[in-house]
Amino acid sequence: MQTPRTTPSRSAKRAHYEAETIYSILDEALYCTISYAIDGQPGSIPTAYARVGNRLLIHGSVGSHFIREVEKGIPVCISVTLLDGLVLAKSGFSHSVNYRSVIIFATAEKVEDYDQKVEALMLITNKLIPERWVDLRKETESEIRKTTVLSFSLDEASAKIRTGGPNDEPEDRELPIWSGVIPLETVRRAAIPDESSVALPLPPYL
Amino acid sequence: MQTPRTTPSRSAKRAHYEAETIYSILDEALYCTISYAIDGQPGSIPTAYARVGNRLLIHGSVGSHFIREVEKGIPVCISVTLLDGLVLAKSGFSHSVNYRSVIIFATAEKVEDYDQKVEALMLITNKLIPERWVDLRKETESEIRKTTVLSFSLDEASAKIRTGGPNDEPEDRELPIWSGVIPLETVRRAAIPDESSVALPLPPYL
Repeated sequence: MQTPRTTPSRSAKRAHYEAETIYSILDEALYCTISYAIDGQPGSIPTAYARVGNRLLIHGSVGSHFIREVEKGIPVCISVTLLDGLVLAKSGFSHSVNYRSVIIFATAEKVEDYDQKVEALMLITNKLIPERWVDLRKETESEIRKTTVLSFSLDEASAKIRTGGPNDEPEDRELPIWSGVIPLETVRRAAIPDESSVALPLPPYL
Repeated sequence: MQTPRTTPSRSAKRAHYEAETIYSILDEALYCTISYAIDGQPGSIPTAYARVGNRLLIHGSVGSHFIREVEKGIPVCISVTLLDGLVLAKSGFSHSVNYRSVIIFATAEKVEDYDQKVEALMLITNKLIPERWVDLRKETESEIRKTTVLSFSLDEASAKIRTGGPNDEPEDRELPIWSGVIPLETVRRAAIPDESSVALPLPPYL
């Protein structure tokens, strides 16, 4: 949703507010960085998450200082970035990067219901490794009790996207300097089994 | 340096304070996320950077709201994260990720000297594409005037690192559930030339 604080001061034409665009970035990225401030001092933490409908879910230890502050409902800013490429121009000034990013302004709601907490942990696990949860040893009540789950609305989320090649100044375009894009990609390498699992078949989702 | 705010509340054994460890993470990552707060409202921005000695350099437009706030010297928290792998355990609770992250608490110093600004922009460009700067059309005074360069001390920086396989509970270790690590890596794909550069040779550093 476009609000004063989701409207960028620079490159406003790169801003996007459609839920579909925001969701696709959130569903592809593997972690978010959550920023908060205590007495004017900013702090930030990278953490795993999942998106379900118009909400973002995170989890953490009940003993985490960060979780205990954020669960009070203080304002947070959640940042997700996918770096898609390096954009090489003919001048340093016109160098850029291709990226898809999301910024969310929100406050936490604590998920108290036991079954909803388990579902959130399943979603966070399956986001990193699709279909993983069904294979796992069942969660215990103690594990769920030791874990806090927080939920954030995506109502005040916005995306910013840059794609394409360099935008050199017209007077630079004929210079004999190579310009173009180096695409970047995050890849998953071959699975390395734990010593307890060397004799076990690799699950199909890996 | 270990200070109260660089001491994590969780997994303190994963914390590292040696400059060499912190520098190697900063030199490998491609962007940082800078968090700040204005009247208690946190905001954050992903941006390129370079490290030189014990300082981190960023740049931005003189018209950027973010840059204009941060250059006042308000406290910021800078977060850098390298996600190295997904750690699959036999229980959901023991799932984890391998990562190397850095958190920096600092305030900006504005780089005003012309030559130092140009050098900072060279370092930021060459961090993304080693050896690039020497090939480029020379910067103009107007370009340097339109760009703000900010410098941050790394005195109050800390790293947090997780490596290795899953840490399952002893009673879970014999369960016939595949466990191990999926390594993650950011790779550079083949360069895509701009239409102005299809006839030009690819530079050796690409």
